[in-house]
Amino acid sequence: MRTFNFSAGPAVLPEPVLRRAADEMLDWHGSGMSVMEMSHRGKEFIGIASKAESDFRKLLAVPDNYRVLFLQGGAMAENALIPMNLLGEKTSADYVNTGEWSKKSIKEAGKYCKVNVAATAADRDFTYVPAQDTWQLDPNAAYVHICTNETIGGVEYNWVPDTHGVPLVADMSSHLLSRAVDVAKYGVIYGGAQKNIGPAGLTLVVVRDDLLGHALPITPSAFNWKEQADNDSMLNTPPTYSIYIAGLVFEWLLEQGGIEAIEKRNIAKAALLYDYLDQSRFYSNPVARGDRSRMNIPFRLADAALDDAFLKGAQQNNMVQLKGHRVVGGMRASIYNAMPVEGVQALVAYMKEFERTHG
Amino acid sequence: MRTFNFSAGPAVLPEPVLRRAADEMLDWHGSGMSVMEMSHRGKEFIGIASKAESDFRKLLAVPDNYRVLFLQGGAMAENALIPMNLLGEKTSADYVNTGEWSKKSIKEAGKYCKVNVAATAADRDFTYVPAQDTWQLDPNAAYVHICTNETIGGVEYNWVPDTHGVPLVADMSSHLLSRAVDVAKYGVIYGGAQKNIGPAGLTLVVVRDDLLGHALPITPSAFNWKEQADNDSMLNTPPTYSIYIAGLVFEWLLEQGGIEAIEKRNIAKAALLYDYLDQSRFYSNPVARGDRSRMNIPFRLADAALDDAFLKGAQQNNMVQLKGHRVVGGMRASIYNAMPVEGVQALVAYMKEFERTHG
Repeated sequence: MRTFNFSAGPAVLPEPVLRRAADEMLDWHGSGMSVMEMSHRGKEFIGIASKAESDFRKLLAVPDNYRVLFLQGGAMAENALIPMNLLGEKTSADYVNTGEWSKKSIKEAGKYCKVNVAATAADRDFTYVPAQDTWQLDPNAAYVHICTNETIGGVEYNWVPDTHGVPLVADMSSHLLSRAVDVAKYGVIYGGAQKNIGPAGLTLVVVRDDLLGHALPITPSAFNWKEQADNDSMLNTPPTYSIYIAGLVFEWLLEQGGIEAIEKRNIAKAALLYDYLDQSRFYSNPVARGDRSRMNIPFRLADAALDDAFLKGAQQNNMVQLKGHRVVGGMRASIYNAMPVEGVQALVAYMKEFERTHG
Repeated sequence: MRTFNFSAGPAVLPEPVLRRAADEMLDWHGSGMSVMEMSHRGKEFIGIASKAESDFRKLLAVPDNYRVLFLQGGAMAENALIPMNLLGEKTSADYVNTGEWSKKSIKEAGKYCKVNVAATAADRDFTYVPAQDTWQLDPNAAYVHICTNETIGGVEYNWVPDTHGVPLVADMSSHLLSRAVDVAKYGVIYGGAQKNIGPAGLTLVVVRDDLLGHALPITPSAFNWKEQADNDSMLNTPPTYSIYIAGLVFEWLLEQGGIEAIEKRNIAKAALLYDYLDQSRFYSNPVARGDRSRMNIPFRLADAALDDAFLKGAQQNNMVQLKGHRVVGGMRASIYNAMPVEGVQALVAYMKEFERTHG
């Protein structure tokens, strides 16, 4: 039996994708090879990678003047690679601090440039997105960096900042492909794959083509976006099997009706859980209502002494990975695209029952 | 039907490994999850990663004062990350140039330090390993870098250089786990996984613990060996599924009798092909006999006009990826651990027949 897996990432994948991967493991489409065994320069894999890219472009309606790169290293590597690739002659960058992932990005960027924290949500413990009119933007910044969905704090942007022509760079790791995005409003969109896209070890970078070619001389070639773009992400051997799985996820998303359909479903799933949290005195979520994440929903029990019993009971009811991140404690339900509504219903039902017996 | 896949990498994997991965795809050991879906912080995956590391250590008898890191980026990323992690206060490093991969390493290292080419095989078109007594080593170098198996040129070290106490750093990408290695003679051993280990997207770094802690301030945290060692390669999300597959490959190797048994088999497989090449006037291999790779065997037809016919016929006989790298032309048979002897026998039989009909 498949469990309901609320992990923040690596995370649940669509069952039809896993079934197909299993079926094709020894012999992909009569090639006599697993995708894992294919040369990245062979026609079979080039076809797989090219289809994955075009399906991704279709899903997000990526404009032609953006390049889609399939890289390695995860968002944490990009925290260094973003300044390395974008600074050029500039010496500073703006960052908005909305929580744990913003903090990591800010700390890492400081190795390469002056970091201006244009706005921070520290005053209310990172439970909201600071309004645009409070941002102190520097018109000479190389770029403005935001994290559009804080996986740990459960804070999500529902609007796109106006950066007055300075390129907007967004870490979308934990909500990319969960909702419509107007790509043209961003200079760079990036994310690790291990939430809504595929296996850990694959990193997507969507970059406007005029932003290529500004890398610092210390940028490793394997992570130089321009060099990778010029080589269709095959300057070095790409993470081929992860790209294949991501491609299957993209096909599955298109079969579901694309981003519009999945976004509707995500809104409904999140509402199920938030509506229940908001009427309860036993559970609570600290995030400002307009800034709540649809993907990662942290919540607390009124009595933290019950946390262990809650988790143990969840496990017995076939629900795993509900423990909150150690930084914030409590619980967290990550309900990515591939989490079926039945999983959220089961969670709410369990929470009700737990409240009834322990409240 | 499975083809005989002579790709230089990503490359053939053991069929039992692929069967097991397919069987466990939807539900690993009753967990109700694919390994791809598991949190890297969960007990299931921590067990998988820890077993993979201990089996790898067992296979190569890795001494206790070495750390085994599971990273991302491939050998090309390490070309930058090695000087970043090892230079410390030093300003130069020694490199030995035995072919295409050495050249890439040398070029990339030049971004971070003065590179002294201590020896080169350029005079004979990179068809041999320069003898130790010709090396011009610098006692103040941060390290000495060699590529112990040149995947493109088919040149392999059969001996370990003496670097007089300067740490020896070896790119073993294309023969790691194909033969016994005295790890204690090296400061760092590294390699991309996509030859003898597992899927592309996983990089192994084996580093002596006293070499940790010398990173340049510009080193990205995700690629800082010390930070990764302190966090058991989980400072950021590791390429979990690739680590799982590598672990299955390690188990398979142990079942085969370990490195000693697989090395014997590799010697016999390579001899089959080299013996045939050496008695033929139709085919030739340019590499000095003592320096020939057991893993990657480049060869030429006397008449290059027959190359296309040779490749087409091979394909019809269920043998793929025999075309040589574009830099050197001709043919190349990569015969990694997972290539069964039957594949090499089939190749030699086909070559004989092609020689008979076209010679």
